[in-house]
Amino acid sequence: MLPDLEIRAEEEGLAARLRAALAAKAMPPGALGRLEDVAVALGLAQGRADPAADPAVCLLFAGDHGIVAEGVSAWPQAVTAQMVGAFLAGGAASTVLARSVGAELRVLDAGVAGALPEDPRLVRAGIRAGTRNAAEEDALTLDEVAAALRFGAEAGQAAARGGARVVALGEMGIGNTGVAALLGAAIAGLELGALVGPGAGQDAAGMARKRAALAQAQARRPGRLAPEAALAAFGGLEVAAMAGALLGAASEGAAVLVDGFIATAAALASLTARPQAAHACLFAHRSAEPGHGALLAALGARPILEMEMRLGEGTGALAALPLLRAAAAVLTEMATLEDLGVGARAP
Amino acid sequence: MLPDLEIRAEEEGLAARLRAALAAKAMPPGALGRLEDVAVALGLAQGRADPAADPAVCLLFAGDHGIVAEGVSAWPQAVTAQMVGAFLAGGAASTVLARSVGAELRVLDAGVAGALPEDPRLVRAGIRAGTRNAAEEDALTLDEVAAALRFGAEAGQAAARGGARVVALGEMGIGNTGVAALLGAAIAGLELGALVGPGAGQDAAGMARKRAALAQAQARRPGRLAPEAALAAFGGLEVAAMAGALLGAASEGAAVLVDGFIATAAALASLTARPQAAHACLFAHRSAEPGHGALLAALGARPILEMEMRLGEGTGALAALPLLRAAAAVLTEMATLEDLGVGARAP
Repeated sequence: MLPDLEIRAEEEGLAARLRAALAAKAMPPGALGRLEDVAVALGLAQGRADPAADPAVCLLFAGDHGIVAEGVSAWPQAVTAQMVGAFLAGGAASTVLARSVGAELRVLDAGVAGALPEDPRLVRAGIRAGTRNAAEEDALTLDEVAAALRFGAEAGQAAARGGARVVALGEMGIGNTGVAALLGAAIAGLELGALVGPGAGQDAAGMARKRAALAQAQARRPGRLAPEAALAAFGGLEVAAMAGALLGAASEGAAVLVDGFIATAAALASLTARPQAAHACLFAHRSAEPGHGALLAALGARPILEMEMRLGEGTGALAALPLLRAAAAVLTEMATLEDLGVGARAP
Repeated sequence: MLPDLEIRAEEEGLAARLRAALAAKAMPPGALGRLEDVAVALGLAQGRADPAADPAVCLLFAGDHGIVAEGVSAWPQAVTAQMVGAFLAGGAASTVLARSVGAELRVLDAGVAGALPEDPRLVRAGIRAGTRNAAEEDALTLDEVAAALRFGAEAGQAAARGGARVVALGEMGIGNTGVAALLGAAIAGLELGALVGPGAGQDAAGMARKRAALAQAQARRPGRLAPEAALAAFGGLEVAAMAGALLGAASEGAAVLVDGFIATAAALASLTARPQAAHACLFAHRSAEPGHGALLAALGARPILEMEMRLGEGTGALAALPLLRAAAAVLTEMATLEDLGVGARAP
């Protein structure tokens, strides 16, 4: 049911060519450390020896979750729609960071429950206004999951076809850390309790409500689930859209820059179904949300930044973007020792 | 002997005002994690509630070290002058990164031994061409240390007076990781062996030579030394210049962004003599050079990036600069929950 997009395999020999190009640069071998790893990852993601980070587009998918009726979040559901307004108006963290780092922010309504501004920049999926309450019933039908995956895939393709070399994935959705925990448990077989954290700031009583509601949802659909089944069981529309966007952007040769806990849960869904897309992805940061490390480990991913951010909205991906730009510049603009006639190492 | 510059004390109450401004922003409290810490540090460094990262100037000080005669480096001394040429020509890592992140790079000859290009952009100290061999005699006279401190202080003041809001400190000098280790041991009382690392790529035989030469230098001037005495005993001219530049930039209200192991040794010298300048400094990254962590700990500093870089040239500071820019934007451009009318947390 995942969009049937062709994902190019990792180009044979390219990693070695990228490493050799870096080894010839005018510096001691490996001296730029993990910035060199980022350069290699970006080259592999784009299938090129001369990768670039610009133009960069951040796709910010918003969606609501029926399970907030159980009191899983510290914030009311209306905040999702209010924040979509803020993304468009320009004062939200992600809009400020996008401007600061030189990325285009595109706001997409994958399934917000509240009223949204009439704004031609807002791309709307029109699937449904929020998911059903996953503690009580399946959050989505399989058709709705397929539609959300397709919506995201089209957005990812459109960004890459429009020239984006990096497509960053971010989200907004009150209640979605709990949904990401359920997806991680079902898709990767991780222990649910280890994936549940405070999200946007739950207190002790809220955490107890959140844990109980998530356990109830998991009991309804226990055990390992295929990605599409897990998305249907637990939601959410913005998570499915990010999973589709990853494949859409990758199918067009863009590098995918994955934000935090919820975006990583979306990547887990995509990459479990289509592991050949793994080389298209870079993981921007390790969130302070405690489950994020476990999801990254399940994907064998090492994130670029460790800034203890936990806001979502693509903010971690945007913060990491300049390091992709710097890494690309090292590969494409830096001279070699030979160019400079810089001498042999001491005998 | 350190330049007698007035360093403004940390403004009373400013940290609390900056934290309060961040707490009011349209996000859960603390959700931007260490990016918020960077915003506070930048505000304190500049003594302003509306800090900025632009314009940013990277001062790249080059100098040579007589102790390379003992075989402490994997690279010949001539590489220092060759790399100064590369900084000016544009193909070196630091020039590429400066362009990528939007910083101005200024190259300063604090005391290079080899022939340098005639280039009007190169600022020359004219103190001496490299230090004496610290394994055999004091690397510098106290007058030479004072001149290098003054040279750096003037460069730091000039950058800040010219408008720089951030002054990044970087260096180039074959042999200078060993010198930084000696300075760390003498100024902070740390164990020399724990501060000695492979620098620009020493092998086992080279490490044995390096350890022996550094032990010989330390035996000549054992124990704790005042910063100026340590700089005279061990050098180097570019380290003293960075130490001066920190105070010069801080005296004019610029934030100082400290690069890696050697720049941190320079900061240790400045801040041991003038602890009231500590609030002016941000530490960009933790280098892969094993002694860097110990120097950062001695200063109570937590670096922004952990990228295992170990090139010097200001590259770590340049890589971190966009995060200062993003942090400043959060403080100055982001809306508050009240601005957006975004609702109260759930009951």
